[in-house]
Amino acid sequence: MSLGEATKRAAIKPHEQLAAYLAPELEAVNALIRERMSSEHAPRIPEVTAHLIEAGGKRLRPMLTLAAAKACGYMGPYHIHLAATVEFIHTATLLHDDVVDESAQRRGRPTANLLWDNKSSVLVGDYLFARAFQLMTDADNMRVLQILSNASATIAEGEVLQLTAAQDLKTDESVYLQVVRGKTAALFSAATEVGGVLAEADDTVVKALFDYGDALGISFQIVDDLLDYWGSAQTGKNIGDDFRERKLTLPVIKAIAKADETERAFWVKTIEKGKQDEGDLDHAIALLNRHNALEETREVALDWAEKAKAALSVLPAGEVVHMLSDIADYVVARLR
Amino acid sequence: MSLGEATKRAAIKPHEQLAAYLAPELEAVNALIRERMSSEHAPRIPEVTAHLIEAGGKRLRPMLTLAAAKACGYMGPYHIHLAATVEFIHTATLLHDDVVDESAQRRGRPTANLLWDNKSSVLVGDYLFARAFQLMTDADNMRVLQILSNASATIAEGEVLQLTAAQDLKTDESVYLQVVRGKTAALFSAATEVGGVLAEADDTVVKALFDYGDALGISFQIVDDLLDYWGSAQTGKNIGDDFRERKLTLPVIKAIAKADETERAFWVKTIEKGKQDEGDLDHAIALLNRHNALEETREVALDWAEKAKAALSVLPAGEVVHMLSDIADYVVARLR
Repeated sequence: MSLGEATKRAAIKPHEQLAAYLAPELEAVNALIRERMSSEHAPRIPEVTAHLIEAGGKRLRPMLTLAAAKACGYMGPYHIHLAATVEFIHTATLLHDDVVDESAQRRGRPTANLLWDNKSSVLVGDYLFARAFQLMTDADNMRVLQILSNASATIAEGEVLQLTAAQDLKTDESVYLQVVRGKTAALFSAATEVGGVLAEADDTVVKALFDYGDALGISFQIVDDLLDYWGSAQTGKNIGDDFRERKLTLPVIKAIAKADETERAFWVKTIEKGKQDEGDLDHAIALLNRHNALEETREVALDWAEKAKAALSVLPAGEVVHMLSDIADYVVARLR
Repeated sequence: MSLGEATKRAAIKPHEQLAAYLAPELEAVNALIRERMSSEHAPRIPEVTAHLIEAGGKRLRPMLTLAAAKACGYMGPYHIHLAATVEFIHTATLLHDDVVDESAQRRGRPTANLLWDNKSSVLVGDYLFARAFQLMTDADNMRVLQILSNASATIAEGEVLQLTAAQDLKTDESVYLQVVRGKTAALFSAATEVGGVLAEADDTVVKALFDYGDALGISFQIVDDLLDYWGSAQTGKNIGDDFRERKLTLPVIKAIAKADETERAFWVKTIEKGKQDEGDLDHAIALLNRHNALEETREVALDWAEKAKAALSVLPAGEVVHMLSDIADYVVARLR
């Protein structure tokens, strides 16, 4: 690569770099997504999905599948189908999350609208989920189907676990990890694993790809949960959403573990009972800082990113593997 | 069969007769369902599903799969898995229907409760759906997977179509048929078809099983829609639910097609605009009777039941096929 190219590369972000490298495949994925999300009989379906699928998500998960397949030397056409599958599953869970998380947003919103959205979200999510399974069968690979159906069950299980664990102050770091593994990491690890399986890679390589996706997904979610208390205008995240929705995430779990009597009473009031007053979010952030909970959470996220990179060592070195490693750095780079 | 047995048989209903015939298989299906709906990490899941799955549904759909496989001489173990799959898909759609149809019930219900139910219904439904796909892969038959994933997409498409078509007076009989084929018949026909495919039956037999399930499902749904205006305490159905939820079903479509100016205004007010006053349900039923819409709908249901029975003629005659034929009679027998 020329010096000019290297400089140009340094200026663009790792996920953009990977997207540029995978451009032809990503275009094929997008075309397949558009084709398969259409519905002859129910034009409402693309209406609902279009804004989610078109509106320039980063396509991180499908890129992981494409990159994993390429890293293992796959030359066939079906990594495109599996990448689209992964994006459909992701979009379906987003749609169903809309229903799930509506509670917090409902105040002040017109009810009719809300319900219409709920109906459409549930059913269109189901449609995408079913389409995902149709797409998988195109690859004609039973192990791929098992991996992705297992991942789907794990995702739902993680979300249900979160329902019961979220407002329960007894939720500890191990339960939190289980939730995160389910609701986020399961799709990351399935995305990378199926790339390797499709390419008929060795078991050790497939295992490494799974471990990479698992650690990357965990890191990704912890960063997300951290930014909810630490974010800024730059990260584009609203601070305090999780607090308002009374979600017990890692920073709060760490602060609760070190809380004295008075602090504990504050967490019981705001998270367990949901009685939140003006200034409570600021006080929560002050408590997180007092116990170094944000910094400690950041270290956990960095650890998982390192684990993700370490897992890649099993793979034959090469441009794609290097880019996957950069992706792990990028995920935590949101923390500066 | 002895005369005593024949008399005993005549006294029990066709679906009970089929259940008795399939008793060992149904027990295995129930055991598999209990095993697969459990969740190590999220005990809420069996809590939510138990009342749906345990509470003695008729298990009509799984029985269709078992019977179709047996009618084709299948001797392996996987019709059990596919029957459980079909029941899981059915239960998942019921859970998601709960969310969808909540609007009508919400008045007077505590909101927190409602939301909790919505959350659990969506996520546990997703879990069952994913579990269904895991179960399918056990049968290790790609065609079966295609049929069931296609059916799942068709079900969701039918439900979405119903969302847009339900309150639209332009909805005609062909759109109604499409909705019914999607939301109900697709799972019936997939249930019977996969039984034949698993048994490696001839294409003509597989096609006949599909046609039987398709016609049976259509008949089943039309009867259901008819009973919503024609039911009684005996049928255990509340009269008028569809009217209150402003669902355009076949009886109303038929009455609207023959409506004069004044009647049309009534349907616009009650169904399209949803302004329903005391006595409107009675008036609606009077209009249905004036135009013979209930009787005509009944004839359509009977026709589809006959089509279902006719499709079976391709299959080798035998006890199971005879019982499947009786099931078609039974579905319309709810109309006396």
